[in-house]
Amino acid sequence: MNKVVGSIREAISLSGLRDGMTVSFHHHLRNGDYVLNLVMEEIAAMGLRGLTVNASALFDVHAPLLRHIEGGVVTGVAASYISGGLGRAFSRGILQGEVEFRTHGGRPKAIAQGVTPVDVAFIAAPAADAMGNCTGKFGPSACGSLGYAFADARYAKKVVVITDHLAPYPLQGWSISEDQVDYVVAVDAIGDPKGIVSGTTKMTRDPVGLLMASYAARVIEASGLLQEGFSFQTGAGGASLAAAQFLQEIMVRKKIRGSFASGGITGCLVEMLRAGCFESLLDVQCFDLKAVESLREDPRHQEISAMQYAAPGSRGAVVDSLDVVILGATEIDTDFNVNVHTDSSGVIMGGSGGHSDTAAGAKIAMVIAPMFRARMPMITDCVTCVSTPGRHIDVLVTQGGIAVNPQNGELKDRLRAAGLPVMEIRQLKEKAEGITGKPKAVSRGDRVVAKVIGREGELLSSIRSVPQNP
Amino acid sequence: MNKVVGSIREAISLSGLRDGMTVSFHHHLRNGDYVLNLVMEEIAAMGLRGLTVNASALFDVHAPLLRHIEGGVVTGVAASYISGGLGRAFSRGILQGEVEFRTHGGRPKAIAQGVTPVDVAFIAAPAADAMGNCTGKFGPSACGSLGYAFADARYAKKVVVITDHLAPYPLQGWSISEDQVDYVVAVDAIGDPKGIVSGTTKMTRDPVGLLMASYAARVIEASGLLQEGFSFQTGAGGASLAAAQFLQEIMVRKKIRGSFASGGITGCLVEMLRAGCFESLLDVQCFDLKAVESLREDPRHQEISAMQYAAPGSRGAVVDSLDVVILGATEIDTDFNVNVHTDSSGVIMGGSGGHSDTAAGAKIAMVIAPMFRARMPMITDCVTCVSTPGRHIDVLVTQGGIAVNPQNGELKDRLRAAGLPVMEIRQLKEKAEGITGKPKAVSRGDRVVAKVIGREGELLSSIRSVPQNP
Repeated sequence: MNKVVGSIREAISLSGLRDGMTVSFHHHLRNGDYVLNLVMEEIAAMGLRGLTVNASALFDVHAPLLRHIEGGVVTGVAASYISGGLGRAFSRGILQGEVEFRTHGGRPKAIAQGVTPVDVAFIAAPAADAMGNCTGKFGPSACGSLGYAFADARYAKKVVVITDHLAPYPLQGWSISEDQVDYVVAVDAIGDPKGIVSGTTKMTRDPVGLLMASYAARVIEASGLLQEGFSFQTGAGGASLAAAQFLQEIMVRKKIRGSFASGGITGCLVEMLRAGCFESLLDVQCFDLKAVESLREDPRHQEISAMQYAAPGSRGAVVDSLDVVILGATEIDTDFNVNVHTDSSGVIMGGSGGHSDTAAGAKIAMVIAPMFRARMPMITDCVTCVSTPGRHIDVLVTQGGIAVNPQNGELKDRLRAAGLPVMEIRQLKEKAEGITGKPKAVSRGDRVVAKVIGREGELLSSIRSVPQNP
Repeated sequence: MNKVVGSIREAISLSGLRDGMTVSFHHHLRNGDYVLNLVMEEIAAMGLRGLTVNASALFDVHAPLLRHIEGGVVTGVAASYISGGLGRAFSRGILQGEVEFRTHGGRPKAIAQGVTPVDVAFIAAPAADAMGNCTGKFGPSACGSLGYAFADARYAKKVVVITDHLAPYPLQGWSISEDQVDYVVAVDAIGDPKGIVSGTTKMTRDPVGLLMASYAARVIEASGLLQEGFSFQTGAGGASLAAAQFLQEIMVRKKIRGSFASGGITGCLVEMLRAGCFESLLDVQCFDLKAVESLREDPRHQEISAMQYAAPGSRGAVVDSLDVVILGATEIDTDFNVNVHTDSSGVIMGGSGGHSDTAAGAKIAMVIAPMFRARMPMITDCVTCVSTPGRHIDVLVTQGGIAVNPQNGELKDRLRAAGLPVMEIRQLKEKAEGITGKPKAVSRGDRVVAKVIGREGELLSSIRSVPQNP
């Protein structure tokens, strides 16, 4: 027995894919991914129509998808994140229906519960054997964790593994096991290593970013949570990395041994693990080569599925054990609602990812963002799109001051006592508008082009069309 | 958030368990298991009735279960193996209904497909954290692999982890992850280490066993399969271990590097891994301490779920990649049908376990068994119970000769050419009966006390009641 078939087309054909069905993809190869395009090209060539693409994220590299939408091959799109290049097209209304945004935890939950069933999952696998055991830890396109693909493999009716590194059976250190896989296809390359992970992720040198990062670390230090067993998550942006580095200095100096860091993992968090700041890393996605290598080599660095990472519900997930998460925002309003889906003119350029999931789970959810970008103030009366409800956000850190959600009075007192520049979020808003001026209201189309669905399945926001730029 | 509750009773109560529901257990603690009895004692004390117990295996230590059957607390029993002590009671007809035997691969498949849904799974976990991440690799009751518990954890409506070693969150090297667990209970002891794994498993010194083992190794050598990439499974019985040891000598001498050994793992197979005979071990259950230690320490030694091990169906499983499996038998008939459920008088004292699964998957399924036991011949015209259909058995090895299933003519020729004592199975039968005499036909009751369900869900055999011994 051997599940290797000769081509992607043969696997699609054997999978029984028909018009109107749903195909799924994961995004660990990020902007280096070849697999989604290869598969959709074949699907289009086979004359299939009316498909839904459910991807954990879509990047600019997936621009050919727009052609398949225009041609009617694809009529439904679901994702947790859509990059700016594609987002502009969706905001113009290229899709007849509405894009469905779910969170990194909500997506696998919806798949598991049959709310968004997947007919055929295509797993881009940096290493696989002929029976479908596969992992992202090895191979020329190694990307590390395959965390977002676990639910697709577990719940899709048919599962196709596509690899450029077919290893002898049984593959050692598999992430997804053969009992979930129907077909295996070997191709020349599943991705461009340059786009998959960056060689190194770098902390910011921008003075505004450094100031925010230093505030962020001091907020954590003052929060009362930075003690034995501390748990932490942050992103891969420059200011987040700088905040982690400042935090590391504090933890090493104070000899604080935390329990874990989670989420997308960077070399910066690997350094913290090695420095003894954490006992383990819980990794749903690797952002750089150092993280990939650590996941492969260090048993304290463990791969988690998106379910284990972030799925909502009574069983809980890693996010429910988080002390502090550092998050970004394109906009935040005076009720602390955060937008990470659109820019301030309403054009899609992101998505929740794990934003809402970690904000809901963590004891302190901290947003760090500059007061304005390109002369557009970041704090508004009402965000263009609610990605994460304000009740889950505890504190906003900007270069001009720190605002604490009134529902967290204790934190406010602690930050004040630590001498941090705490002010009301309305004061911060006015301060920013004093520099940039009040922005003009943005005009928006009537059509809903995307729905933002919260982690529990509730409708959070509707994103409206934006006229094409001249 | 924290899933630890104060007692087993509290967990049962929170789980919503009601009359008539199904509870499940795994058997990695073997004859040292305390958990099934602790849970059933509470269930009985709570006044629940009419429950079905679905256990991957039942051992003599679970004798208190008989009381719960007599009392009407338990009215259904499903298992893959039942030891002699309990088997006698079931053969007498203690259960009003019929015991349902399934294979190690058929059981998780039936659970997954909802044929035998589980309401509450109780996972005996040698190490766990407060969120339910758990493993058998660590702790005072370490048993190694938790392979048989994976399906229970994944598909049961509620999952309760019971541990005697609560470790800090996040547990490192979990086998079952927190997103599948509802409640965690800490108890003083989940088992008696003496009954869980033997300190060492020993090869036989019995000359009959050694002769069969030597034939078995020579059959493998002559089969044509013993080459680069060879894969192998054997049991923990004395003759099987001796066969493995003889095989190791051949492989080392001939410098043959196999790919994997699978199934229940013993120190003997660990030695073969270390000696370079295999690239990896695929472990659904550890039989001794050396296997437990190896699973913990050696990344080439990997835990597999019962699904990955043996589940039937188009996706395949490890058993489908097996070259040779060595199996036992209490009886085999002239059509090569094998009985491992009852003794020759029809009393339940075993079960298929992975017997049928590996026999169906392996290129060569070899049964080794002595020609007779206590003057009862092992080869019969018609087995008392069909555990594994004869079409899946390739060769029978006894001390008196070797019989090849006529459907495998090539193997027969190879064994003859190698000078092995090949004869027809009827000749072997007559040879045995020449020593023991023809056994008297066994009288059996009218009532069906157990159904043997094949790995694909088909009814293979009905086991009839046996009158109580005087």
